[in-house]
Amino acid sequence: MTEATLENGPQKPVTRVLFCGLSFPSSHNYTIEYLQKYPFIQVDVIPLEKVPEIVHQYHLCVVKMCRFDSALIAKASQMKLLLQFGVGLEGRVDIEAATRSKIKVARIPGSTTGNSLSCAEHSIYLILGLLRKQKEMDIAVKQRELGVPTGDTLFGKTVLILGFGAIGVDLAKRLRPFGVKILATKRKWPSDESSCDFDEIAGLVDKKGTPENMYEFAGEADIVVTCLSLNRETAGIVDAKFVSSMKKVDKRNYDAVYEHLKTGHLGGLGIDVAWFEPFNPDDPILKLPNVLITPHVGGVTEYSYRSMAKVVGDCALELHEGKPFTVIEFVN
Amino acid sequence: MTEATLENGPQKPVTRVLFCGLSFPSSHNYTIEYLQKYPFIQVDVIPLEKVPEIVHQYHLCVVKMCRFDSALIAKASQMKLLLQFGVGLEGRVDIEAATRSKIKVARIPGSTTGNSLSCAEHSIYLILGLLRKQKEMDIAVKQRELGVPTGDTLFGKTVLILGFGAIGVDLAKRLRPFGVKILATKRKWPSDESSCDFDEIAGLVDKKGTPENMYEFAGEADIVVTCLSLNRETAGIVDAKFVSSMKKVDKRNYDAVYEHLKTGHLGGLGIDVAWFEPFNPDDPILKLPNVLITPHVGGVTEYSYRSMAKVVGDCALELHEGKPFTVIEFVN
Repeated sequence: MTEATLENGPQKPVTRVLFCGLSFPSSHNYTIEYLQKYPFIQVDVIPLEKVPEIVHQYHLCVVKMCRFDSALIAKASQMKLLLQFGVGLEGRVDIEAATRSKIKVARIPGSTTGNSLSCAEHSIYLILGLLRKQKEMDIAVKQRELGVPTGDTLFGKTVLILGFGAIGVDLAKRLRPFGVKILATKRKWPSDESSCDFDEIAGLVDKKGTPENMYEFAGEADIVVTCLSLNRETAGIVDAKFVSSMKKVDKRNYDAVYEHLKTGHLGGLGIDVAWFEPFNPDDPILKLPNVLITPHVGGVTEYSYRSMAKVVGDCALELHEGKPFTVIEFVN
Repeated sequence: MTEATLENGPQKPVTRVLFCGLSFPSSHNYTIEYLQKYPFIQVDVIPLEKVPEIVHQYHLCVVKMCRFDSALIAKASQMKLLLQFGVGLEGRVDIEAATRSKIKVARIPGSTTGNSLSCAEHSIYLILGLLRKQKEMDIAVKQRELGVPTGDTLFGKTVLILGFGAIGVDLAKRLRPFGVKILATKRKWPSDESSCDFDEIAGLVDKKGTPENMYEFAGEADIVVTCLSLNRETAGIVDAKFVSSMKKVDKRNYDAVYEHLKTGHLGGLGIDVAWFEPFNPDDPILKLPNVLITPHVGGVTEYSYRSMAKVVGDCALELHEGKPFTVIEFVN
């Protein structure tokens, strides 16, 4: 604080940080904790519906589930940075409007904060929960039955990873010793053999493809995990055609998936991020015996959230001191 | 069948196989399926309480949860082999009484049938379910909350594996890429550097100890997994002294564990094999928020159970043909 006061003079106003919405509470709790010794940074947590009224008071905003369309961006007259607490910005922020308003938009890289490894661990939890029939296990305990249900091993399965970014890589590393065959699709694989990723990726994936190989790979896979970022190319990618070409799948296109789960063509569905959120707990898909849902917590671990809170806090400090932002990844 | 008829003559009586108790239904279902083309092998599934009345009619018995004390063994006048559908025989069969009655007692090795890898996969499922707070996730979905609870990563944790047999090895192999430190205890580690296991085990375990190091290792561990066979040395091993010396633990001594879960000294408990079975679904320990129980299904996967059903079926065929038993591991 002393340093900042000296540098900026006592007249320098407080830097104001806005967290949009009350969900993902550890995001703001850990950030507030990290910044508590800096009284010249003010962190507020505002319900989503109040954001339009107060957004003009803030310099840095952590977007979370808020939709920053051009109307909201127009109100954000003092805003310097729209930051996601994680990587998923697409569909939430009108990046062109932000650029026109000279607001930087950025995400926190997943591979350095523990976010992608947290998501990878959560994927394995969901896969194992489906293979072991979590709901039926709960019923067996209540009915005092032993040795039922008969589950399925991950060993021997073929896993298709759609999207081979930070989460896909962390997932493949952990899946390898389970004795699975790994197929993966990626728009552009590193082609340079001298690239530091090249050998590592070569050892993780048994069959590499591009989005064009998706349907062919789906026919071979027992388990599909979508690790894609959401954009125009990927939205709704797991559609009726995809689901029909596969043995089993996890998520994305509600109608296609629901129908195939009902007929038994799909053996199970694990959802952490649902089609609409928060997802209706009475939705019929959740009544199906082999569907598991978790409340969008794939990346929500203390390790990952404290790492990302430090990134947000450091951005606020850099903004306050007029220094360039480090660590974060700009999208405009 | 033709072969058996030729060899043994049409007068050879049917070989009778007894499965004790109705639990673990895939054990008998898969075995019956495997043997269906051999009419000279008869497989029966009998409720536990009827076993004493009919045991004298059988030549081969799959023990499961049945207790073969000397009185029951005395009744088994035609019995040639008491076989466990898996590895856990201890405490169930009076091996000395069986030996006196010239009955062989055997288990099915876990590492060749997929049983140990199934248990290892299930351990990881339970560990991840505890770290991600499965019960709190279910509540969050019902209450339409997002991004809660904040879980914990397996990454960065220290895992103590008590007992480093087939399950322990399969578990360590799978845990390695999660970025954990692995401690393990074993009565006798392979000391011969030329042994085929030596290098593999050296790479899996960060710190090797004997049962004497148990309390010291417990103080270092975030997560403890018991992969011990049950015998006089290991029964009740996770007692008050052990639990006091550790950060977190999984199971064994009910009172010690329950008290430490209530005070919060233990962060979570995952149980697949409970103290008493079937476990009372209304037991207060199951009401605690960070306790997960599954119905003794660690090894119950289609892959493992079909492999073991083939072993039982082949034993019945070998017995019928008067050939020596292969594959199984005798304990007397």
